[in-house]
Amino acid sequence: MTDRTEMWTELGMDLEAHDNLCSVLPTAFGDVFLSQENRPAGMAYWDMVTADIHGIRPAELVEAQKKGRKVFGTFCVYVPDEVVVACDGIVTGLCGGSQFWVPDGEQVLPSDVCPLIKASVGARLGRTCPFFRIADVFVGETTCDGKKKAYEILANDAPMYIMDVPQMKREKDIVKWAGEIEEFAAMVEEVTGNELTPENLGCAIKVINDKRRALARVYEARKSTVAPISGTDALLMMQIAFFDDPVRCAEMCNKLADELEQRIAEGVSAMPAGSKRILITGTPLAVPNWKLHHIIETCGAVVACEEMCTGTRYFENLVDEGQTTLEGQFRALSERYMKNNCACFTPNTGRIDDVIRLAREYRVDGIINTNLTFCTTYKLEGPALERAVEEAGFPVLNIETDYSDGDSEQLRTRIGAFVEMLGD
Amino acid sequence: MTDRTEMWTELGMDLEAHDNLCSVLPTAFGDVFLSQENRPAGMAYWDMVTADIHGIRPAELVEAQKKGRKVFGTFCVYVPDEVVVACDGIVTGLCGGSQFWVPDGEQVLPSDVCPLIKASVGARLGRTCPFFRIADVFVGETTCDGKKKAYEILANDAPMYIMDVPQMKREKDIVKWAGEIEEFAAMVEEVTGNELTPENLGCAIKVINDKRRALARVYEARKSTVAPISGTDALLMMQIAFFDDPVRCAEMCNKLADELEQRIAEGVSAMPAGSKRILITGTPLAVPNWKLHHIIETCGAVVACEEMCTGTRYFENLVDEGQTTLEGQFRALSERYMKNNCACFTPNTGRIDDVIRLAREYRVDGIINTNLTFCTTYKLEGPALERAVEEAGFPVLNIETDYSDGDSEQLRTRIGAFVEMLGD
Ligand code: SF4
Ligand code: SF4
Ligand code: SF4
Ligand code: SF4
Repeated sequence: MTDRTEMWTELGMDLEAHDNLCSVLPTAFGDVFLSQENRPAGMAYWDMVTADIHGIRPAELVEAQKKGRKVFGTFCVYVPDEVVVACDGIVTGLCGGSQFWVPDGEQVLPSDVCPLIKASVGARLGRTCPFFRIADVFVGETTCDGKKKAYEILANDAPMYIMDVPQMKREKDIVKWAGEIEEFAAMVEEVTGNELTPENLGCAIKVINDKRRALARVYEARKSTVAPISGTDALLMMQIAFFDDPVRCAEMCNKLADELEQRIAEGVSAMPAGSKRILITGTPLAVPNWKLHHIIETCGAVVACEEMCTGTRYFENLVDEGQTTLEGQFRALSERYMKNNCACFTPNTGRIDDVIRLAREYRVDGIINTNLTFCTTYKLEGPALERAVEEAGFPVLNIETDYSDGDSEQLRTRIGAFVEMLGD
Repeated sequence: MTDRTEMWTELGMDLEAHDNLCSVLPTAFGDVFLSQENRPAGMAYWDMVTADIHGIRPAELVEAQKKGRKVFGTFCVYVPDEVVVACDGIVTGLCGGSQFWVPDGEQVLPSDVCPLIKASVGARLGRTCPFFRIADVFVGETTCDGKKKAYEILANDAPMYIMDVPQMKREKDIVKWAGEIEEFAAMVEEVTGNELTPENLGCAIKVINDKRRALARVYEARKSTVAPISGTDALLMMQIAFFDDPVRCAEMCNKLADELEQRIAEGVSAMPAGSKRILITGTPLAVPNWKLHHIIETCGAVVACEEMCTGTRYFENLVDEGQTTLEGQFRALSERYMKNNCACFTPNTGRIDDVIRLAREYRVDGIINTNLTFCTTYKLEGPALERAVEEAGFPVLNIETDYSDGDSEQLRTRIGAFVEMLGD
């Protein structure tokens, strides 16, 4: 692997602390991924990117910045990548998924905040993540209380821009979100120095839709009971999609989908025969949070689908490509994004419909509803969701967990018992 | 006291559980209020109302309902009473301030939710609060995560109407809130059967402004270092203002203000000489939550001001009375309400400015910043607030507490030490 010390130094990172992170990641990665059997050959791409996750892609971003391009870091799938891409900017996800960053976050945040927020703040303040050093603009949103207020704290250290997400989904909220996108676009134009036009936005809408179509093809293959790919591998692909170039992401996902379709035709599975099929729903699983997938898939089950922002919500619903004015395009973007059923909205019964629909489409045997500790919005809508999916005939297990490994054995016992009792 | 059993039965209350509540309240009230010395005579009104809090006012509301008037229950000072009053409706606060209701709330809510939310939900589901039985419409709002999602649970049992509060305070958010008020008005018209006109809304604006002016007069008197009233008494007046008829409330507050002004002229204090002056800021203190005031005021200090929704935020800023069209009035209402600096907004630096301004106006010696347990929005902006007020020269103490009495002794120790070290 190329030595990245110079780049990390230039980015102002804390090299010593970062070395500690780098020394644990390969082991975690090896345990979770390289121990799997019958993996699709196409996963080699994601293995490579992940093995050098603080090297390859950051180096590309730094290179692009040298040519004058700007990098926008985001924390929520409601922020429309299309606008940034249209102005020749680059989007990178910033959500932290490792316990490593939590203590640095707890320096400025109380412990009773969700680990995703603590890790994201910690990754910036501890100077141990290159993406958090590279981003020219940090784009926050008013989704949950924790993020909304943590951005105020981040703003002392990083250039924040906040979008005000409506909390409901009436017609006027779609109008409002279109207005927020328009204002966001003005900022992106200013930062990039590039004008947004119906033409470049139209192209960007197509680029991001193509990425969605490619991700959807991989997921489509996961509907097959052949199980041509593990859920853990699919999750990794999805997590990296937040960081990758969208055109390359689509290309790689399409290649992987080709292979998976071939595998289905040939009956080649990545999982042991008889693996129970699980849909997992809930709070996002930011990279490198592979904890639940790893436990589930070493307990006799396969994760067939993720109804989460690191899952179906990232690619379902395309933006209308037929609009030819910025106004029409902003509206089309708003309509697409507002279809995303996040618990931060009220009511959010659409998520229940999604989970039941997906559980059927992916032919799952059971559902795991997972909440990150202290995520109030998801936790409070959990019981209603669980009642509804049980009524629809799907056994459900509720799991609340954070990024630490302290509860792994307990989770393994609970998940094992749940998988065990799923019907044949 | 009149026997209210028949009314409570008709309201579908759980009489047995309610009896338990009724048997503890008088003791709590006696300990906190009747033990005080040198109280203003005007407090007799609030003593009477509070002693029969589930009787007098509920009976009035039931009487009004028999005549066809409708009752709207609210949980946030962002909901504009003016609109309801204009249509001859009645507003009653619904926030629960007693530990008594928490266990019933925890039947459907996780324990790591703020006690105000648990108590409010519990008061409804446990059928132990007449106000929660009487309200024809429950008006919720998308302020914090906990309330936003708890309303979904309440909606299974009570007729909810939700207003979408913007999370920021730009010009377009004021426009948005005006639009929410307009939509709210349409619902109020439908429920009451009365048309909203510029005339009746103009009258209602004046009625509520008059109430604000009256409350402000009492607070004005609290600026005097004579301390003509205890903070505990002022808090009770404020808490009852959420439940009382607004015209009577103004009348009683004005009478009390007359008395307090007289006391100041004569140098009559409700507090021992040399009491340190405290401003308390933070999450609301819903009735009967007198815990902190009681501890502070039996530790050698007087609470001179509450920068909270049960305090200055309830009466500061008047609605422009000069508008003559509904459109202009909605805008004027939005402008006034959007000046309220709640931590649910981002950023919320206006609250810091308010606290420093009020600390000076009320000539306080120190500030207590109090958060209800698990209130993420207030907790996360706490450190920035505390740094700023310290820089402005005010010692500050941070207190996180819930409704239980388990930490009373610990709080007494901490508050006692804080008061002790305040300069003379
Ligand atoms: S869970 Fe909600 S807040 Fe989080 S990324 Fe998804 S849409 Fe955004
Ligand atoms: S998991 Fe929940 S608390 Fe955490 S960032 Fe997402 S919505 Fe917020
Ligand atoms: S603290 Fe905020 S949410 Fe609560 S009543 Fe006040 S304005 Fe409303
Ligand atoms: S105190 Fe905080 S958590 Fe509780 S209802 Fe108010 S804003 Fe929400």
